[in-house]
Amino acid sequence: MFRVEMVDWTGGAIKDDNSALDIKLVDLSNVHYLSGPIRVVDNDGLPALPGDLLAVEICNLGPLPGDEWGFTATFDRENGGGFLTDHFPHATKAIWYFEGIYAYSPQIPGVRFPGITHPGIIGTAPSMELLNIWNERERDVEENGLQSLKLCEVLHSRPLANLPTPRNCHLGKIEKGSNEWEKIAREAARTIPGRENGGNCDIKNLSRGSKVYLPVFVEGANLSTGDMHFSQGDGEVSLCGAIEMSGFLELKCDIIRGGMKEYLTPMGPTPLHVNPIFEIGPVEPRFSEWLVFEGISVDEHGKQHYLDATVAYKRAVLNAIDYISKFGYSKEQVYLLLSCCPCEGRISGIVDAPNACATLAIPTAIFDQDIRPKNNKVPVGPRVVRKPDVFKCTYDGNLPITKNASASS
Amino acid sequence: MFRVEMVDWTGGAIKDDNSALDIKLVDLSNVHYLSGPIRVVDNDGLPALPGDLLAVEICNLGPLPGDEWGFTATFDRENGGGFLTDHFPHATKAIWYFEGIYAYSPQIPGVRFPGITHPGIIGTAPSMELLNIWNERERDVEENGLQSLKLCEVLHSRPLANLPTPRNCHLGKIEKGSNEWEKIAREAARTIPGRENGGNCDIKNLSRGSKVYLPVFVEGANLSTGDMHFSQGDGEVSLCGAIEMSGFLELKCDIIRGGMKEYLTPMGPTPLHVNPIFEIGPVEPRFSEWLVFEGISVDEHGKQHYLDATVAYKRAVLNAIDYISKFGYSKEQVYLLLSCCPCEGRISGIVDAPNACATLAIPTAIFDQDIRPKNNKVPVGPRVVRKPDVFKCTYDGNLPITKNASASS
Amino acid sequence: MFRVEMVDWTGGAIKDDNSALDIKLVDLSNVHYLSGPIRVVDNDGLPALPGDLLAVEICNLGPLPGDEWGFTATFDRENGGGFLTDHFPHATKAIWYFEGIYAYSPQIPGVRFPGITHPGIIGTAPSMELLNIWNERERDVEENGLQSLKLCEVLHSRPLANLPTPRNCHLGKIEKGSNEWEKIAREAARTIPGRENGGNCDIKNLSRGSKVYLPVFVEGANLSTGDMHFSQGDGEVSLCGAIEMSGFLELKCDIIRGGMKEYLTPMGPTPLHVNPIFEIGPVEPRFSEWLVFEGISVDEHGKQHYLDATVAYKRAVLNAIDYISKFGYSKEQVYLLLSCCPCEGRISGIVDAPNACATLAIPTAIFDQDIRPKNNKVPVGPRVVRKPDVFKCTYDGNLPITKNASASS
Amino acid sequence: MFRVEMVDWTGGAIKDDNSALDIKLVDLSNVHYLSGPIRVVDNDGLPALPGDLLAVEICNLGPLPGDEWGFTATFDRENGGGFLTDHFPHATKAIWYFEGIYAYSPQIPGVRFPGITHPGIIGTAPSMELLNIWNERERDVEENGLQSLKLCEVLHSRPLANLPTPRNCHLGKIEKGSNEWEKIAREAARTIPGRENGGNCDIKNLSRGSKVYLPVFVEGANLSTGDMHFSQGDGEVSLCGAIEMSGFLELKCDIIRGGMKEYLTPMGPTPLHVNPIFEIGPVEPRFSEWLVFEGISVDEHGKQHYLDATVAYKRAVLNAIDYISKFGYSKEQVYLLLSCCPCEGRISGIVDAPNACATLAIPTAIFDQDIRPKNNKVPVGPRVVRKPDVFKCTYDGNLPITKNASASS
Repeated sequence: MFRVEMVDWTGGAIKDDNSALDIKLVDLSNVHYLSGPIRVVDNDGLPALPGDLLAVEICNLGPLPGDEWGFTATFDRENGGGFLTDHFPHATKAIWYFEGIYAYSPQIPGVRFPGITHPGIIGTAPSMELLNIWNERERDVEENGLQSLKLCEVLHSRPLANLPTPRNCHLGKIEKGSNEWEKIAREAARTIPGRENGGNCDIKNLSRGSKVYLPVFVEGANLSTGDMHFSQGDGEVSLCGAIEMSGFLELKCDIIRGGMKEYLTPMGPTPLHVNPIFEIGPVEPRFSEWLVFEGISVDEHGKQHYLDATVAYKRAVLNAIDYISKFGYSKEQVYLLLSCCPCEGRISGIVDAPNACATLAIPTAIFDQDIRPKNNKVPVGPRVVRKPDVFKCTYDGNLPITKNASASS
Repeated sequence: MFRVEMVDWTGGAIKDDNSALDIKLVDLSNVHYLSGPIRVVDNDGLPALPGDLLAVEICNLGPLPGDEWGFTATFDRENGGGFLTDHFPHATKAIWYFEGIYAYSPQIPGVRFPGITHPGIIGTAPSMELLNIWNERERDVEENGLQSLKLCEVLHSRPLANLPTPRNCHLGKIEKGSNEWEKIAREAARTIPGRENGGNCDIKNLSRGSKVYLPVFVEGANLSTGDMHFSQGDGEVSLCGAIEMSGFLELKCDIIRGGMKEYLTPMGPTPLHVNPIFEIGPVEPRFSEWLVFEGISVDEHGKQHYLDATVAYKRAVLNAIDYISKFGYSKEQVYLLLSCCPCEGRISGIVDAPNACATLAIPTAIFDQDIRPKNNKVPVGPRVVRKPDVFKCTYDGNLPITKNASASS
Repeated sequence: MFRVEMVDWTGGAIKDDNSALDIKLVDLSNVHYLSGPIRVVDNDGLPALPGDLLAVEICNLGPLPGDEWGFTATFDRENGGGFLTDHFPHATKAIWYFEGIYAYSPQIPGVRFPGITHPGIIGTAPSMELLNIWNERERDVEENGLQSLKLCEVLHSRPLANLPTPRNCHLGKIEKGSNEWEKIAREAARTIPGRENGGNCDIKNLSRGSKVYLPVFVEGANLSTGDMHFSQGDGEVSLCGAIEMSGFLELKCDIIRGGMKEYLTPMGPTPLHVNPIFEIGPVEPRFSEWLVFEGISVDEHGKQHYLDATVAYKRAVLNAIDYISKFGYSKEQVYLLLSCCPCEGRISGIVDAPNACATLAIPTAIFDQDIRPKNNKVPVGPRVVRKPDVFKCTYDGNLPITKNASASS
Repeated sequence: MFRVEMVDWTGGAIKDDNSALDIKLVDLSNVHYLSGPIRVVDNDGLPALPGDLLAVEICNLGPLPGDEWGFTATFDRENGGGFLTDHFPHATKAIWYFEGIYAYSPQIPGVRFPGITHPGIIGTAPSMELLNIWNERERDVEENGLQSLKLCEVLHSRPLANLPTPRNCHLGKIEKGSNEWEKIAREAARTIPGRENGGNCDIKNLSRGSKVYLPVFVEGANLSTGDMHFSQGDGEVSLCGAIEMSGFLELKCDIIRGGMKEYLTPMGPTPLHVNPIFEIGPVEPRFSEWLVFEGISVDEHGKQHYLDATVAYKRAVLNAIDYISKFGYSKEQVYLLLSCCPCEGRISGIVDAPNACATLAIPTAIFDQDIRPKNNKVPVGPRVVRKPDVFKCTYDGNLPITKNASASS
């Protein structure tokens, strides 16, 4: 068992203060700050080898003592964006404080929930061959996506991919400016998306007692981890959407020799097209009752998409935001809340053409009021006048906003 | 409280016998067989009105006494298809028998699980205005989808939409062949996809003690329900994927006057673009441990898609099928199993461009063996020789099959 | 699988009306009304034999259609009594109505909970040898208990045992008044207590999907069942404490040949001194949060008892009753509520001499108000004025009442 | 929020070594080692006052870094004893190692379980008046218990009470041997039993996110805590029965002014006869399936007791030990296991004279084999030959042992 400590994913760029300006202006080329790579050897000192499976058990984890706070944010539409950036184009920020298992935010009053704390990123290093596959396919979507992929329109977020760039590249002990540094920086994958090696999977249930089975592509596995989340909702919809924090992990590694072939079936043109497997353990907050919002694959313009779960989930999240905003919240507050509270995003139906059906389930116990529909009006009066709001910056960009034609306000 | 009984969704076309031929040859224009419409009035006899919200509590439900069995199937690729029809183009069928809360299948030995029984379909009737919206947008996808929607390629299933057709139209007491019958049959929506009115949502947790809040579009609400499922996995991936059965529902209805405006925010160009809300209650099977398979939005050809949760989920399901098939099952057995056991399909990450990350979580307790990766080979020998297989028909079509280039077999 | 239907345990003596008089005057010699005995044979027609273990799976169960109501009551101290009869000596009654999985009572407003429905009684028939053991040891406690057993004082309930009596004996088809009838009636055990054969165990989690392993003492096992409970709290403290109802069971029986010796170890002077084993399945209401009341083995007079869990539990229940009565309830309402809601009675510490520590945990979600201690006064005003009370008779007896010396009222 | 660290309850007397001799010879007058007392003040610096309620939230807790191990033991019958000391009179010891949330023991192979970590002891200081009440009533049971309390016979453990004694008294900074020290040592309560102030309650669910509401008897409350348990079964049956360890707590205190009167009703002759209240939070290991053992209030000699939950629980635990020992374990291994694994001890029926019914529920997932009864023999062969056993000392005493007359071995 060994211990890994980490800064938050931005390397401390976001502060516990009264403004979202740091979010608006953040340089996203600077992320992620990770801890690692860690070379993994077995009890005989032999390293993990390509083709092995690396079993990583998360024995313990949490915030760093003395640093028990985190933030949830939405980026400016022209600097990062997010799942609903065409509806909410401005930068916002909420600060969360931790009391043991619980988090609360002065900017989103009336909610308190236990966190399912987890690392957003955990993965092994790619081989050169795998890296080339990544760079090629991602360059293709960046160059041709707008023409060929309908979702590029529906999700107005940019960029379409995060290609290698020397700008703000973190390369550890390699001397900056050296030939080696330049070469690596131009081809090393950025860590924004999760890929075959694990990476930024944002699987919110990967908490205390869970296990990750990672494919090994290079000798020693070169395990890296980071992007600690106190809590996250399925989808992490606002992008900077978990409760982002610094933290520690206590890990135990076990090498399953030849495990890739034994347990993983490649799904794609090469034997490297695999994905990790996860085991979720018995310790998680239990909730009794859930309020569930549904979306189908018809977008906000009324256009029909074909079995598209992303479009369906977008509509489900929009439905939930509007609903909960009736209980005394601003829509920005709810957007941030659904990004970071332990809500569940489900693919409920994926076969009944042309509509996929996605659902977002919210545990009702996180609210201090009853948010279920009732046979009288939504309560008004002092109870739901929740004065504080999230910190918000103006949106000065010129990209078109997706209006909701039929919403009252 | 009132009781509704229903036949299975095919109206009894599929038999408890030793062949999948009935599945291969089924006439899908014949579905769904529903119970209803039910006119809902309040305690004073006043009907539900457009703009109201209809709260339907599912007090009790289950199979019909004496008819405690069901089936799970995949359609032939050229007659129905399904989520993975390009990988599994043949018709298959498994029969399930019920022992109280549990189901088991002679065709998929070694698994037994408690069902989360629910109606696949519950919904209100659309107004003429809403019906026109449906017909128009679905016709558009059928006519233009292949050109404009990338998913139409990735999911090789056909048709792209299920437009109105007089063929095998169920119109209750309206005289078949009359002018009225012809007119209705040519414009009445088919019930395959879920839509603004609820309908075929296939939300697997909508079981005993749950509540549905349905928008009312016509006087009396005209509630219909059907397509009873003994159990279903999130996504119902094989299309005829739940354990399909006949059954009964005991419902309690409550009208929330003006509730559409009070609680639902339209999301789209008209005030009719809403979705139902659901409440999930405290009674569900609890599972301790889950094995989780991940997929990212790169398809089987290695092509990168942009934040596409459908592609990611397809890969996650394919990963799971291949993995579990190592434990003595055929891939067809696993495909059917993951369609109907209480597994969870999650949208885990939807913001880290270009990869969406979807996960499929399977409760390990449904198997009679330990299916987790271990530091020795997958057990061989008598334990995993599971002779019975699902009933299978040949595929005689000529659509191209998606091969998995790097799989061993 | 076979179906058993049953009347409630009093055979219908208690009515859905506005008075507790039927409870006060009930003839308790008349109980329990059971269904059975059922002779169990295997697939070859061979009966269960002494020494076998009878595995009974509860496939399904519930109230009888059209009879969806039940009652909870306390008996008059001089006609039945109960766990706290020295504090609450009068007869009371509350009626519960069922809405699917939920129960509510007009007499105990502001609570609604899902039931864990189960048969209070399920057991096999004793052999003559076992019957003699029962009659002898129970006669001893009735005759000598007051002298030798301290708990007889602490629990002021009477009688100390329920010995055989011809009065209101139910003997099925045996002709009443015949010699055989008289002989049997004088030696047949009354079904009040649970014993080696199972019987009136009142294990509240024995619901849908559970299994009971019963020892077989006579050929055919002679399985009987009855005393259906819609819901019960651990301990069933008010004696008629569950939500008592008529109902049905769907059972599946399996004979484990020689299973008594294989799986049960006798604990006592003979091989017949065994107890059943139970298996609790995965389907139960889940609750997130519990309020827990503790008691130690010091009685209401301040007297120290030695590691006595019964005394400790009595104090825990009294503590809970007084606490919850602060939220707008009468103590009689809470006494009945804690008898029948899904609360858990735990033996928390049984070794730290001289105090046993018992706890009563109540799921907070069953109340429509927040019952946790808060840093301001218990709310007053209209919210907690709950006018309706349980039906109550006067206590006309002359046994001394246990007062709580230090309680304010 | 503040942090409390603590040694294990014996102050480090028990070692991580290969012998139970330290357990056999332990000087029990030396316990408990506690951390505290802590004077609690509010935000204005005003201390908690008699009559207040002290709300203590357990924000975080765990073993001390670098000290991730614990022990479970039974004492020698003549030096400490335990719940079943008349059956298991010898000293035994098992060592547990922790891997994050899980514990495993080389002495009890084939089990691994997540701990519900909690402090065994948390309480406030008594006033002089309360202390006198304790000393008086406990002296009475020590002097007269054998004559008046039947359980003193059934539980052959000694002593009957743990009265004040100067021997090994821990009095913090008070000079040992001074007049003050002598006076206090002769009247200060020993911390073995839980009492009105909380103390050694051993409530196993008092873990991360829980809250304790403690009565305040002296200015400043003088909160003490200790006896950290990595995991414990309900009842902690072997006395030294939890997984005992050193550890830390992070606590948050809140004073509810006047809360004793507001929320606690005294149950006994004085206003001091109260008990704490607890709140259990949403984060606990979840288990799906339980095997349940039952006991009734008939002791091992066949003697009938009257509604005695302690006797019933003793029989339930004995039943469970014998059953599980069939799966390759020694009875001593199971006795220790049931003391420390997350099993539940329930008071199931407490009203059906003369039998109380108690149950012990064991989560089946903690075993690496299926321990349920099956329709074939208990598996034999290599699988259940579990060679290692707990460390065991001989019993050299001369108290009579309770034999189980009808057990085979």
